[in-house]
Amino acid sequence: MTPARFRALWQTLLPIGQDPAGDGWLRYGWSEADLACRAWFTAQAQARGLQVTTDRNGNLYAWWGDPAGDGAVVTGSHFDSVPHGGAYDGPLGIVSGLLAVDLLAERGVTPHRPLAVAAFAEEEGSRFGVACLGSRLLTGALDPAAARKLTDPAGVSLADAVSTAGLDPAALGPEPELLARWGYFIELHVEQGRALVDRGAAVGVASAIWPHGRWRIEITGEGNHAGTTAMADRHDPMLTTAYTVLAANKEARLRGGHATVGRIEVAPNATNAVPARVTAWLDARAPDQQTLTGLVEAVTVRAQDRADRDGTAVTVAAESVSPVVDFDVTLRDRLAARLGDAPVLPTGAGHDAGVLSGHVPTAMLFVRNPTGVSHAPGEHATDDDCAAGVVALADVLAELACQ
Amino acid sequence: MTPARFRALWQTLLPIGQDPAGDGWLRYGWSEADLACRAWFTAQAQARGLQVTTDRNGNLYAWWGDPAGDGAVVTGSHFDSVPHGGAYDGPLGIVSGLLAVDLLAERGVTPHRPLAVAAFAEEEGSRFGVACLGSRLLTGALDPAAARKLTDPAGVSLADAVSTAGLDPAALGPEPELLARWGYFIELHVEQGRALVDRGAAVGVASAIWPHGRWRIEITGEGNHAGTTAMADRHDPMLTTAYTVLAANKEARLRGGHATVGRIEVAPNATNAVPARVTAWLDARAPDQQTLTGLVEAVTVRAQDRADRDGTAVTVAAESVSPVVDFDVTLRDRLAARLGDAPVLPTGAGHDAGVLSGHVPTAMLFVRNPTGVSHAPGEHATDDDCAAGVVALADVLAELACQ
Repeated sequence: MTPARFRALWQTLLPIGQDPAGDGWLRYGWSEADLACRAWFTAQAQARGLQVTTDRNGNLYAWWGDPAGDGAVVTGSHFDSVPHGGAYDGPLGIVSGLLAVDLLAERGVTPHRPLAVAAFAEEEGSRFGVACLGSRLLTGALDPAAARKLTDPAGVSLADAVSTAGLDPAALGPEPELLARWGYFIELHVEQGRALVDRGAAVGVASAIWPHGRWRIEITGEGNHAGTTAMADRHDPMLTTAYTVLAANKEARLRGGHATVGRIEVAPNATNAVPARVTAWLDARAPDQQTLTGLVEAVTVRAQDRADRDGTAVTVAAESVSPVVDFDVTLRDRLAARLGDAPVLPTGAGHDAGVLSGHVPTAMLFVRNPTGVSHAPGEHATDDDCAAGVVALADVLAELACQ
Repeated sequence: MTPARFRALWQTLLPIGQDPAGDGWLRYGWSEADLACRAWFTAQAQARGLQVTTDRNGNLYAWWGDPAGDGAVVTGSHFDSVPHGGAYDGPLGIVSGLLAVDLLAERGVTPHRPLAVAAFAEEEGSRFGVACLGSRLLTGALDPAAARKLTDPAGVSLADAVSTAGLDPAALGPEPELLARWGYFIELHVEQGRALVDRGAAVGVASAIWPHGRWRIEITGEGNHAGTTAMADRHDPMLTTAYTVLAANKEARLRGGHATVGRIEVAPNATNAVPARVTAWLDARAPDQQTLTGLVEAVTVRAQDRADRDGTAVTVAAESVSPVVDFDVTLRDRLAARLGDAPVLPTGAGHDAGVLSGHVPTAMLFVRNPTGVSHAPGEHATDDDCAAGVVALADVLAELACQ
């Protein structure tokens, strides 16, 4: 696998959903860009003679071998991006899967089990607010009735969005029989930090996903005129929000976790009005559940204290919480050994692999990211490292499918 | 003027632009709601036999007497609102003007000068970002070429918006001949604080408008993944913003001014992304220019200090700055005396009256607001006080037009 060969396929996907202003990619689940990615996938699979199937939740599979066979080795990731995200997060796993199939075919490998490249629906949660939507529905981690009612910022429901894409929204839901036929799931992903840079390795293996979640912080005050309302008469929710943002940062640093307020909505959001209401979303993660719980509790207490001073009211509600994921240890060690003692490292990011790991022996491969940047246009991996990732993935798939 | 009579006219205007969900009014300049208000104005003027004229900037006038006559006494305010604003800010001055005309006619008063009720275009700046748009264009305080290029959040230019409303965008600009024919301008406005509540008076007279302005604070960091980016590796502009919000509040309290951050835009505004950029708007006001300058400088210095710590970059740019307005002292004292020694008070809010005061002897009347709330649905004035406001305005107009 040459870097140029990786680049040749990569470039055919790259323009889809790219911001015309050059500010990253906009590939929201079930959007026009996402549908174009899905069409690209089907065309690529067909060009390779792979049979394409769709499950009830719109997750796509390209099969080498019998889709109804047992013990399948499935690899893949997702097409969708965060707003103005990078090009690699998700698509790299799918493109690498297709190229790994090419490599195995060229090697003359004959898998003893079905092998599939998967593309999961809406992993980022950027459109309907729930991360790993496709894999959560597939595994039963998300109630399909609740999922159908999810709406995007324009008010379009998930039911309507999948319906427009030709899927039956009434059919959304778990598929235990499908999952029972999977022997392994392997997700290759661009690294989202700089651990592989520090270790001088192109490819690593995941040990665990930190427990993490999203909390919605709703702060209500009293809307008023910015010019005429005496400072002492204000009940300004922006102050409570600002204090909470700083408190979250401090508590995360103290505890060795991560806390981020990356999304804020202000009402009415007018320059000359003291806001009536601010909604802030807290993204918190930690190496273990106890640290995460302590972190969120500490932020909540400090937000409440400040709200008392500001004369505002604050509520903190969990929107989604994911427990720690320890990937299959035997599989992890086997793959790391197969890849010449590749570095083994934890990650703070959620993935479809995390959702699937409760149902199928699952592993993740990471490809080095020289910037360490993720979820932003600066996210990167060199063509050399991507090609090395393809080779590693092909080796892993051969190891598992030919055993 | 009975409270019921005020209410009867008021209720005909009230439904226009009201949020269907009950959360205040949405009357943006040149929007459908604004055009409906303008049609209401024309119909009301015609029902009273008043001649309606429009100036080059879309400001409307209903004339009692010759629109081309000299020494006109003009009263009025604006229809447009902030997002989810109250019903009184602006419209009360126009409705009171029409009712004051009724009252003078019933009293058998014969004005010696033309008398007009005016409705100024986009005073709040909520659609095109520049407050007092109509009066600034009229007086030449705003360059028409720059104004034509202003865009609303949907990307519609002011030129297109006024063109759709039947106005010639090429004709926007100052009208010194029109202004030279005005003898006085009087704006009646709901009070935006509780000074008249404290003084037990239904109506007051303005002394001055605090110097005030809007500053755009642009904070640039590095977009990244909220889960995987180590706290120490972040360049998070949300932290710089939060600190600046709290610093602005503190500096304003220390200096006896007002500072508000009521509008924030985050990019990409995703829950699981460290933001790449935050834009915050600072609204700052103070009793005098020196205090205002000192306040904004102090906020800027503190924002820069924090940006240095966060590894972010901050720029602060004035978007609009209005100097102190001291209303005509002779006129002010004459009106206060005419109204039985009405309280005289300054305000922190900008008004068309402030823009016009540099060109025409100008005064403002305030009507008591029991909640003190402004720019929010809780803004209020009792029908009794509104009726008292009409009587006061009629007395003032008679004093000036019959001298």
